[in-house]
Amino acid sequence: MTLQEIISKIESVDSEIFEKAKERTSQLIMPPRAMGVLNDISEKLCAIASNMKPEVDRRAVFVMAGDHGIVEEGVSAFPQQVTCEMIKAFVNGIATITVLARQNNCAVVVADVGSKCKIDEKELSGKNKFIVRKVKFGTNNFTKEPAMTRDEAIQSILAGFEIASREIEKQNLNVIATGDMGIGNTTPSSAIGVVITGNRVEEMTGNGTGIPSEMLKKKIEVIKKGIELHKPNPEDGIDVLSKVGGIEIGAIAGVILAAAYHRIPVIIDGIISTAGALIAYKLCPTVLEYMFAGHKSEEPGHIKMLDYLGLKPLLQLNMRLGEGTGAVLAMHILDAAARIIKEVATFSEAGVSESKV
Amino acid sequence: MTLQEIISKIESVDSEIFEKAKERTSQLIMPPRAMGVLNDISEKLCAIASNMKPEVDRRAVFVMAGDHGIVEEGVSAFPQQVTCEMIKAFVNGIATITVLARQNNCAVVVADVGSKCKIDEKELSGKNKFIVRKVKFGTNNFTKEPAMTRDEAIQSILAGFEIASREIEKQNLNVIATGDMGIGNTTPSSAIGVVITGNRVEEMTGNGTGIPSEMLKKKIEVIKKGIELHKPNPEDGIDVLSKVGGIEIGAIAGVILAAAYHRIPVIIDGIISTAGALIAYKLCPTVLEYMFAGHKSEEPGHIKMLDYLGLKPLLQLNMRLGEGTGAVLAMHILDAAARIIKEVATFSEAGVSESKV
Repeated sequence: MTLQEIISKIESVDSEIFEKAKERTSQLIMPPRAMGVLNDISEKLCAIASNMKPEVDRRAVFVMAGDHGIVEEGVSAFPQQVTCEMIKAFVNGIATITVLARQNNCAVVVADVGSKCKIDEKELSGKNKFIVRKVKFGTNNFTKEPAMTRDEAIQSILAGFEIASREIEKQNLNVIATGDMGIGNTTPSSAIGVVITGNRVEEMTGNGTGIPSEMLKKKIEVIKKGIELHKPNPEDGIDVLSKVGGIEIGAIAGVILAAAYHRIPVIIDGIISTAGALIAYKLCPTVLEYMFAGHKSEEPGHIKMLDYLGLKPLLQLNMRLGEGTGAVLAMHILDAAARIIKEVATFSEAGVSESKV
Repeated sequence: MTLQEIISKIESVDSEIFEKAKERTSQLIMPPRAMGVLNDISEKLCAIASNMKPEVDRRAVFVMAGDHGIVEEGVSAFPQQVTCEMIKAFVNGIATITVLARQNNCAVVVADVGSKCKIDEKELSGKNKFIVRKVKFGTNNFTKEPAMTRDEAIQSILAGFEIASREIEKQNLNVIATGDMGIGNTTPSSAIGVVITGNRVEEMTGNGTGIPSEMLKKKIEVIKKGIELHKPNPEDGIDVLSKVGGIEIGAIAGVILAAAYHRIPVIIDGIISTAGALIAYKLCPTVLEYMFAGHKSEEPGHIKMLDYLGLKPLLQLNMRLGEGTGAVLAMHILDAAARIIKEVATFSEAGVSESKV
């Protein structure tokens, strides 16, 4: 399928079931909407599933990996080889995302869509699934040339869409999460955030994995330079992605499109996943109806990107790791919300007296 | 045991293990403390357990029920009989706390320490344990006389301590949560908050289960009247509890003392549980080392009470139900933190390169 065919098949959630779910919430044995955000989530899950008994128990997180030409400018605290080293740690089940995925009964799918590693799919086997679907061996340095061509940007989105679609169909998944790995990838993520939200570079850029203030200044300069050089069109997601983006960021946009296409909820993670969400949103605003923000990252640009999308983060735990950790941790919140609308009794079912006021 | 004997046996957590846990956190394959609050929780759990491999898998929530004489002043949206009706819903497993407890593999212990119901322990059997340990059939109206005598206040704390201690020992629990039921109980909770934190009544009082603004004015007046009449001594937890408190609030203080006494973590819920936490803290400040704040309630006084205790809420989901819902939902966060320090590999174990800066 082409990207245009995919987008044309994405439909809105079920507004009739949404209204029915709101009615049920109002009848549950609690003061009006006393579970706050959980009540909202219950209703959104019903609308997505087109069903008053939504399920979120067949789960996967897609950890998309890519490398970044921009790291040669000195914007990251860690050496580039860490991308490959972490891919191995993910497959071997010893990294943070894999620990949280085990806690949450969530399959981990690690996909190398754009790293510089030359790891063969069959060569690396471990506890978690590993897929190689290489669009390119790392992006170009966007202070010199576009991060990738327009066609490569489209290919990165299609890679994510196809990887996620295959797993959704094969495992009959009913909730997915997005994750990322790529040394240097807060830089393109902030750049995408700047272009699409229109906020200033200084407000949208943080110290990523922990860079000192001098490197942060450099990072800000680099983002300014890339945006000035290429002048990405904020209304054209592909243009933004190709000029200042990343391959794994495109793939994350594809995973989000796959969730909406298959009518299941998708939980996004921190600033890298949210950069992918901005791209997906620009291509197809309807994806928002399927999207939840797992958490608020410590990266200062993240909350501004969520505000732009109108999403409220479910967790605020000062995390800044990525990998999908905040998204997978938030699966528990969606599960709680699904159970509340399905299992809590109504006033009449329970024989509990209603409010007098 | 007397209350004084209990308090004298509560000891600080293990500071040596705490330092060792901080060291391990710094070696995990992530940027420094990139899991934010989860890293802090991991270390606190290690210190509480005096063990580098803390476990939080044997769980119970204690839902303490009591009635309030103050409701005759018209401070609640719901009729007083709802306390008894909800006790039945808890035991029958159809209320929100029981749904979330099932999700979190957490036993529910419902204890009637002070309701006006005349339900026999043997009469009411269902999915969850029900204990009757009645200190008093509801408190007195504190605009006219103290809510209870000093001895009744002590008895309410001992009731909670004994109920929780028995279950902790019998089920070998390694984490517990506090919950509440009692129509009208945000009124004494705000009153306790005002007396102990020193904030103004208007700042500490909210619309509870959903009262209109006229009833809120009345609620504020009632709290002012009770405090002016009895002048509780903020440094004497028993004095505050007896004059403007509640029986279930005293029992919650007792549950918290039981956790610290048995050296296991306790997660507190919203404003009622936190009122109990303030009483426990005034009796024995060391309990703070064992305490986690499950969530931030919509009741405006709650965050001010948590600030006073120096606790940061783990969840912020605009909830305002009580019952222990926010505390039980947060068990998942503690579990994630315990797994992270136990299961995530270190840089040297994983062969991942460290930061260059």
